[in-house]
Amino acid sequence: MKIAVLGTGVVGQTVAARLDELDHQVVIGTRDPAATLARSEPDRFGNPPMSDWLAAHPGVTLAAFADVADGAELIVNATNGEASLPALTAVGADALADRVVLDIANPLDMSKGFPPALWVKDDDSLAEQLQRAFPQARVVKALNTLTANLMVDPGKLAGGDHSVLVCGDDPAAKELVTDLLRAFGWRDIIDLGGLSTARGAEMYVALWVRLMPVLGGTGQFNIKVVR
Amino acid sequence: MKIAVLGTGVVGQTVAARLDELDHQVVIGTRDPAATLARSEPDRFGNPPMSDWLAAHPGVTLAAFADVADGAELIVNATNGEASLPALTAVGADALADRVVLDIANPLDMSKGFPPALWVKDDDSLAEQLQRAFPQARVVKALNTLTANLMVDPGKLAGGDHSVLVCGDDPAAKELVTDLLRAFGWRDIIDLGGLSTARGAEMYVALWVRLMPVLGGTGQFNIKVVR
Repeated sequence: MKIAVLGTGVVGQTVAARLDELDHQVVIGTRDPAATLARSEPDRFGNPPMSDWLAAHPGVTLAAFADVADGAELIVNATNGEASLPALTAVGADALADRVVLDIANPLDMSKGFPPALWVKDDDSLAEQLQRAFPQARVVKALNTLTANLMVDPGKLAGGDHSVLVCGDDPAAKELVTDLLRAFGWRDIIDLGGLSTARGAEMYVALWVRLMPVLGGTGQFNIKVVR
Repeated sequence: MKIAVLGTGVVGQTVAARLDELDHQVVIGTRDPAATLARSEPDRFGNPPMSDWLAAHPGVTLAAFADVADGAELIVNATNGEASLPALTAVGADALADRVVLDIANPLDMSKGFPPALWVKDDDSLAEQLQRAFPQARVVKALNTLTANLMVDPGKLAGGDHSVLVCGDDPAAKELVTDLLRAFGWRDIIDLGGLSTARGAEMYVALWVRLMPVLGGTGQFNIKVVR
């Protein structure tokens, strides 16, 4: 299917590459494609510039947010939390109507350093904020609980014997995302319920950011919900 | 060793029974022992009255908070979150000086029903609040991430192949608690770091309360940190 991935960071690149590998038609959305392509230096995490990445992934195209949704069955929000609402706004409410939006972002406030705080929690979530802003979109929260390479290839850790969460109000949208997760290699996919349960999935990140440094700092871990 | 367990609820009873079984000298602290002993009806969860429980556990005694700490090497806070500061205040700052306090409680606000919110998070934790109130106590956070029977007998679930977290600023206090956890049967004990990491352990509970209903409602689950 045609899938639009919003965001050119590590999460966007990793998800886009995996979807491309799985023979989906992938377009990456960004605010200003010309500016993105003009950058020739690695980013602050040492990742290669987007132009190099695109050259290595000829099946994937880059476009402005406003141009990515046409014909896409799925829109993946792989921007950072603070950029999510502006990115979806740039995609446009009309373009988002009836579309499945897989929200991977976390509402992290990095302004006070590490570990970050969450700027929404308990009585709301980023996923619900996006859903309220675009009531006709079909928002599903998933994959925000682990690092990018494990999102798309859980088998890289413990043979895939760990868990991923799915939250959303639209059963068919959740099923589409669940099918995609299975294609990534996920076997233990826990349906937490309606989109408000994304509060739990997002607040778990407060533990993730504290586990990360004591487990080697690479993010190569995840939780298995044992029951 | 002599151990004081604060709280007569399910957590207090379960922890006290297990410590008694492990041949520790256990006293349970409560606000008003006479009132606690006078109750002859099961509590709202269907648990037997404390007098029946004590008759079934003759090795365990009941005393007022002010009388439990004398000679105790460890004080276990098994009250509910809102009762924790009053309970420790009743134990007394002098009695808490240099004592190891294992804080199991969660800062749950049940006023709006289920799932509860946390009344402190992100920039503080219940464990840190207790530590600040009693700076001479040696507070360790652990066991707040799972249901009572699994806290003290992890082998009841998946042969014990799941994880528990420990947070605290005092290495010796953390080691005492870690030894106790090993005696309970824990094998994967993750030291998250200083007491401020209890924010992560407490915020995880926002996920726990959403997993609980979809996993059968009994709380018979836990996370294994796979790495």
